[in-house]
Amino acid sequence: MGRYFDDIAVGEVHEFGRYEMTEAEIIDFARKFDPQSFHIDPVAARKGPFGGVIASGWHTCAASMSMLVGNVLDEHSLGSPGVDELRWLQPVRPGDVLRSRAKVIEARASKSRPDRGIVKSAFEVLNQKNEVVMTMTAMTIIRRRP
Amino acid sequence: MGRYFDDIAVGEVHEFGRYEMTEAEIIDFARKFDPQSFHIDPVAARKGPFGGVIASGWHTCAASMSMLVGNVLDEHSLGSPGVDELRWLQPVRPGDVLRSRAKVIEARASKSRPDRGIVKSAFEVLNQKNEVVMTMTAMTIIRRRP
Repeated sequence: MGRYFDDIAVGEVHEFGRYEMTEAEIIDFARKFDPQSFHIDPVAARKGPFGGVIASGWHTCAASMSMLVGNVLDEHSLGSPGVDELRWLQPVRPGDVLRSRAKVIEARASKSRPDRGIVKSAFEVLNQKNEVVMTMTAMTIIRRRP
Repeated sequence: MGRYFDDIAVGEVHEFGRYEMTEAEIIDFARKFDPQSFHIDPVAARKGPFGGVIASGWHTCAASMSMLVGNVLDEHSLGSPGVDELRWLQPVRPGDVLRSRAKVIEARASKSRPDRGIVKSAFEVLNQKNEVVMTMTAMTIIRRRP
């Protein structure tokens, strides 16, 4: 079923998802992709710049993608050309439970490819204390109704 | 040892890293974080928008971070406030071998925190055919020489 580009309206706000960042997953992700001591070594991290282990910013991005795919993106998604103004505003720590909020700020039909449009969203990731830990302007290509 | 903020000059260019994107890792990452059919299902992907499985853009970001930490970032890194103009320009496919290129475009001492500075870099990820598959403007906080 899913929603086509034509079903999406500027101004729509969606709040969705739940992603618990466990210490084990934070360390596992960072060992593979971002092995800085404040991501992978709880002992060293305690004396480091964040006073403890924090998640790699790319891990928070990946977690936010997983919330998107489970809740908002469907089979009409055709991928993304990119993201603007990605900001890691607050550390994400072991045990934090994240959720997402997205507001559609622009929806533009493609001129060159009439089967699709581009949707731009102001995207926020919040933690269980309602702090905004990450923001970005995300672009998604969505199929038009045939 | 490592390099302090004070050792970094605007205009510096570094080319570094080697990251092979295997099909197994592409599917594994995407099953966890970005389970869209064009990332996880080789059969469906063949008929999909990219003609085959492609890596999640966040996987390419994670791979680029792993190249950075192994080659450019050291113990004087204090994390990142964010990234601007992240663009996924070309699909990354199974078997692609990525490398990175970074040019320092700005280096600014922090006004509020005299122990650190912010370095802005124009960052590119290239594949084995020398196609630029991803670009971003990356910001990194680096410790100043004490």
